[in-house]
Amino acid sequence: MSPDSAQGRGRNAGPVAILAGSGQLPIQLVHHLERTGQDCRVLAFRGFVSAELRRRADAKVDLLDLKSIMQRLEEWQPRAVALVGAVRRPGFSALLGAYSLLRNRQEVRDVIARGDDQVLRGAVMLLEERGYKVVGAHELAPGLVVPVSMTGAHAPSPEDQQAVAVGLDLLGSLSAFDIGQAAIVAREHVLAVEGPEGTDRMLGRVSAMRQSLFGFRKHKEGGVLIKAAKRGQDLRVDMPAIGPRTVREAARAGLSGIAVGAGSTLVLDQDKTLALADRLGLFLIAVELPWMDRTDGE
Amino acid sequence: MSPDSAQGRGRNAGPVAILAGSGQLPIQLVHHLERTGQDCRVLAFRGFVSAELRRRADAKVDLLDLKSIMQRLEEWQPRAVALVGAVRRPGFSALLGAYSLLRNRQEVRDVIARGDDQVLRGAVMLLEERGYKVVGAHELAPGLVVPVSMTGAHAPSPEDQQAVAVGLDLLGSLSAFDIGQAAIVAREHVLAVEGPEGTDRMLGRVSAMRQSLFGFRKHKEGGVLIKAAKRGQDLRVDMPAIGPRTVREAARAGLSGIAVGAGSTLVLDQDKTLALADRLGLFLIAVELPWMDRTDGE
Repeated sequence: MSPDSAQGRGRNAGPVAILAGSGQLPIQLVHHLERTGQDCRVLAFRGFVSAELRRRADAKVDLLDLKSIMQRLEEWQPRAVALVGAVRRPGFSALLGAYSLLRNRQEVRDVIARGDDQVLRGAVMLLEERGYKVVGAHELAPGLVVPVSMTGAHAPSPEDQQAVAVGLDLLGSLSAFDIGQAAIVAREHVLAVEGPEGTDRMLGRVSAMRQSLFGFRKHKEGGVLIKAAKRGQDLRVDMPAIGPRTVREAARAGLSGIAVGAGSTLVLDQDKTLALADRLGLFLIAVELPWMDRTDGE
Repeated sequence: MSPDSAQGRGRNAGPVAILAGSGQLPIQLVHHLERTGQDCRVLAFRGFVSAELRRRADAKVDLLDLKSIMQRLEEWQPRAVALVGAVRRPGFSALLGAYSLLRNRQEVRDVIARGDDQVLRGAVMLLEERGYKVVGAHELAPGLVVPVSMTGAHAPSPEDQQAVAVGLDLLGSLSAFDIGQAAIVAREHVLAVEGPEGTDRMLGRVSAMRQSLFGFRKHKEGGVLIKAAKRGQDLRVDMPAIGPRTVREAARAGLSGIAVGAGSTLVLDQDKTLALADRLGLFLIAVELPWMDRTDGE
């Protein structure tokens, strides 16, 4: 299929194609699109999507089966494509093999040697070159994006505010490395930096560290989860997201609250998430990121 | 006891006092001192030290029992004190309570709000104020310090060298945050940043991440453990160290090698560690840290 043929057939009238990974975001996005009367097709990545999404999926493919992915899109002629939900990064050689079907091998090698964002951006580039319009979840469902006004019933203490400042500073410093959408900080003490393992596992780590010391969990030992988009992050790929599960895990880790980047973080089930934070005694706030364009996510 | 009385009694003739935490470093240091005919006393922190060290200990105390610690030192009148081996950071309020016996509460609060190094430096400060000379393991046993010439049988590939450069860059950026003596990088892709959980657990995390994706462990998937002292780190506290165990865990995580900061990292059982790396096919190299004084660890 050539880019020309792809662009030829009525792209503005087609459905939205969701390339779906794990987590609750894909299904919530599908519900949102359905509620607002927008036609959508779901391409589910085998081994990643939730059971609910698997039932709803129009097609299932392997993450690295780029040929089948491109075939489905060719069939559907979507007006927009969104890459939503998490996928675990495949091994280097598997990625190299898959992308090499479509690209020069050395070029692929250069892209995938870098972090996860670069690999996802490589996927976006491939889609765009074939004439597809790639959008982010935040463009399809702006209601999921955290407004700066979001706040739960509890307020951060001065120590927590200090932790938020240290965390933002840390995440800003890490932006250059394509790692670290999140960190956990108690006062000025960094307890964890998120790697590719994801936020839930990082929270689990802090939970385990604290348990192995005391043998039991005190309700709140303090500390804040700070989660934010990186400097220069393409919000169409791997946009940071939290939901009720994040709040539960943060409580389990003994944290006192959560701060997320305003305008560039998604909150799934915002009402439920806030209610849960309120009930568990955690603060939940949105903070402006010094490195994001203030009008960016509005 | 006043600082004057402490300094009064023949400090230069006394034994070396080892305040010992976990890991192999304390016992190796004791062996080294004994081999070289230096008198030493071991104060073991309950719940941290190895069985071998517990048997050798002259006294056992709780980590936060500063009163007993000071009493022992007063008895022993050591010519030097070394804080050796890892201890897990106690909770904020436990630390606050313990230090407050000896210091102004707000001052303690400010120190322990920061990272682990600050807490350890606080301990060093307390000891120095009482007239004790605090030294690092590298001063007592210079033979344990990695020379820049150290290298195993295997050499890093160009991709590994790239990973080392990215890792050093990352650790340099993190220096300001009192976290991150180590990171794991594959090519340009940061797989993990070490938090207070320690190197072994970070390696275990990468091992688990890779296993959960493929369900089995390929022998080598690549990636390098980079471990180095922080910019401005006081080498008397929490000096980075590796040993045979580090090599084994790195192999288990599928890494291709280990790079440590020359002159500012300890290698336990250097012969055994190198032999193990050779046998498991891992490279092991020392690199000069751009932020360390080149004569510092010589």
